[in-house]
Amino acid sequence: MSEPAGAAESALPSEFGLIGRHFRPLAGPGALDLEDDAAVLVPPPGRELVMAADAMVAGVHYLPDDPADGVARKLLRVNLSDLAAMGATPLGYLLTVSAPTDTPDAWFAAFARGLAADQAIFDVTLLGGDTTSTPGPVTLSLTIIGHVAPGAAVRRRGAKAGDEVWVTGTIGDGALGLAASLGKLDDPSGYLRARYCVPSPRLGLPLTGRASAAIDVSDGLLQDLGHLCRLAGCGAEIEAGLVPLSDAARAAGPAWLADCLGGGDDYELLLAVPEGRGEALAAACATLGVPLTRIGRFTEGPMAVRVIDAAHETVTVARHGWSHF
Amino acid sequence: MSEPAGAAESALPSEFGLIGRHFRPLAGPGALDLEDDAAVLVPPPGRELVMAADAMVAGVHYLPDDPADGVARKLLRVNLSDLAAMGATPLGYLLTVSAPTDTPDAWFAAFARGLAADQAIFDVTLLGGDTTSTPGPVTLSLTIIGHVAPGAAVRRRGAKAGDEVWVTGTIGDGALGLAASLGKLDDPSGYLRARYCVPSPRLGLPLTGRASAAIDVSDGLLQDLGHLCRLAGCGAEIEAGLVPLSDAARAAGPAWLADCLGGGDDYELLLAVPEGRGEALAAACATLGVPLTRIGRFTEGPMAVRVIDAAHETVTVARHGWSHF
Repeated sequence: MSEPAGAAESALPSEFGLIGRHFRPLAGPGALDLEDDAAVLVPPPGRELVMAADAMVAGVHYLPDDPADGVARKLLRVNLSDLAAMGATPLGYLLTVSAPTDTPDAWFAAFARGLAADQAIFDVTLLGGDTTSTPGPVTLSLTIIGHVAPGAAVRRRGAKAGDEVWVTGTIGDGALGLAASLGKLDDPSGYLRARYCVPSPRLGLPLTGRASAAIDVSDGLLQDLGHLCRLAGCGAEIEAGLVPLSDAARAAGPAWLADCLGGGDDYELLLAVPEGRGEALAAACATLGVPLTRIGRFTEGPMAVRVIDAAHETVTVARHGWSHF
Repeated sequence: MSEPAGAAESALPSEFGLIGRHFRPLAGPGALDLEDDAAVLVPPPGRELVMAADAMVAGVHYLPDDPADGVARKLLRVNLSDLAAMGATPLGYLLTVSAPTDTPDAWFAAFARGLAADQAIFDVTLLGGDTTSTPGPVTLSLTIIGHVAPGAAVRRRGAKAGDEVWVTGTIGDGALGLAASLGKLDDPSGYLRARYCVPSPRLGLPLTGRASAAIDVSDGLLQDLGHLCRLAGCGAEIEAGLVPLSDAARAAGPAWLADCLGGGDDYELLLAVPEGRGEALAAACATLGVPLTRIGRFTEGPMAVRVIDAAHETVTVARHGWSHF
């Protein structure tokens, strides 16, 4: 194209090239090819929308040298896990990426590759977002949009004394995976690190009408169970020996139990289930390939979480959970 | 409350206190008091949803010492401006805040105060979000949710050669306000700095069916006009002397013209309007208190933006716009 002399030609600055190369291929219906100021989403008829946002910072939520594709997948999956806890179906997401100006193009390429892989698995597409520079660490923020039938969202509030405490999958792999990544724990198979880096959101479980409350385990089993207790005005007792551990976590030995119970980053679901209904729910989850294990019970009395052993003696656990401030 | 010996008591870590103190009062319908993993939003019946996300980084998008209430308002308003450009009505927002662990509580209090003030002005509420620590600068990401009648969203794509170029308000105050904040330009009244720090999103204008394309001026008038041209496959000519400048910008003198045209951060709307329809739209906007000014025309030929003077001679403009990478 010949440019008139003195014209401000419309060649895009590199920010737009970066978006075009790496993010436009991820855009789905409603994203308007990321051409516009905003996305237009036609809500699924007769459904309520469920929305959550989580941020991740290099050096805080992941190690700065972690492969970018895994970082992207973790970012998407921790948000999908919030939908899972509400019993919602994923629809799409918006994303902001703040990265140093010298971030290599290959980092963005790998980041987008991770998103593309998980978009295919979880049936979501990119709706919109923003890329900016930062003098600090890479900082990512993702807003996930999902949907549920009206009134069907499972809440954190709703547990009752007498309900049982159930969890999906295994607990502690996230915390031990972080320890392994930091060289503090052997992880010969890489299983724990993989669980830490790329969690499995427990989407699609038939929780509505079966679980009286649910939360995903992101800040540590004991702390997240504490949230359910506080909102219910009751306590809980969990039996340490019932908490499901992976073979790799079991191999780490009992010294790591406090990290398993308090460490966070599991992205399993923690459920309150009325007595007598857990087995049927567990059977339904098992047909979907998700193990569900009873680990304790909500109790009358103080809003506190007690860990007990098989003889019903209190076990002292040093580590309660994770707080950023 | 008496705690059983050895129990993991459910006292919240300070992250949750911070959310409860500062962010819970901002939560609206659907936010579930920020108690849950996600918000539940009942979409307004028969409406499409419009969504955008923008990030802001201390030291990049604002000066680290800028008052936190103004930072919060700018964050919300730059996102509202994206809705304005689509002709959408605001509904709510999700927010992630990554801040250093030594960020004073007063910073969060002021930040929330700014959000509260603008929530009242723009009739939006907080739906959800996340707070995390960072070893880097404060990094903010906001996802705005709005709604439009089906098919009514105004797009960036749609300008035609022959359409006129119109802008709301005045152009260049954002760039000059930044220059003033950096001590590079006198701003005795503080007007320019106020425009830079707290822009005015042009919500509620009757654009649908009247503007053939729209964009908000965030990256610089020339660059954003270039976006409309590229999507339309046409060029544009704007007459420098027609570009509306505030008294304060005019007082800065002609040496600052390139900054006004290329500097960004105006958050005015740039519209393509079919010939003969601009005056009626301007009159409608005027009744809403928003000036609308014709500054040029979309042209056949190369997808380029040309700045001309009153004698139709090309004016060379050094600065085209802003790119992060």
